[in-house]
Amino acid sequence: MSRLIEKKCTACELGAPLVPDEQQKDLLKDLEGWLIERSDISKLVKTFKFGDYAKTIKFVNLIAELSEFEDHHPKITVEWGKVYLEWWSHKIQGLHMNDFICAAKSDEIFLSIEQ
Amino acid sequence: MSRLIEKKCTACELGAPLVPDEQQKDLLKDLEGWLIERSDISKLVKTFKFGDYAKTIKFVNLIAELSEFEDHHPKITVEWGKVYLEWWSHKIQGLHMNDFICAAKSDEIFLSIEQ
Repeated sequence: MSRLIEKKCTACELGAPLVPDEQQKDLLKDLEGWLIERSDISKLVKTFKFGDYAKTIKFVNLIAELSEFEDHHPKITVEWGKVYLEWWSHKIQGLHMNDFICAAKSDEIFLSIEQ
Repeated sequence: MSRLIEKKCTACELGAPLVPDEQQKDLLKDLEGWLIERSDISKLVKTFKFGDYAKTIKFVNLIAELSEFEDHHPKITVEWGKVYLEWWSHKIQGLHMNDFICAAKSDEIFLSIEQ
């Protein structure tokens, strides 16, 4: 498991640093199954799959708790048995270290839900 | 409020009838703010807005409860203060009466959350 999960998000203000491309690649190595979707705004994305709807919604609620705790809110797309998560930092229109931290914590949450 | 909310979804099997276009237009008149997005598959869609994240997530959970009760699950896209709901019937790749019923019930749920 990544050391990222031991970190806490910092305040992300306008003008905060984007994670440089080279460092993004290094950080991705610590994350399983996450991709960087590059369009106007780079986003860290992953699909999580579940055996039933109750687990799907449980995951959504735990991600919501994390979001409030970190004061950082992802885009969450929910279908039966499937959650597509997108982390990025609105204020800087791209990837902040917070996004990598929250991606690692999302994986930890997923693993906490018995499949 | 629409009479749709008094109905319960029926089992939607392969080969069940799509709602004809003309009837779709009539049913839409009973729904506030819903649009039919027509691409490969027609979907009934609406964005709901909330004053905080707790209400946003409360709405998601109530929609999830409705989904389990009706055994009909929408695509739910969640951001801070915003939920985009998409109802359609996977088995018939389009709009069944169930989708209009669930749209009406979604509105009722939204109104139940104090803004």
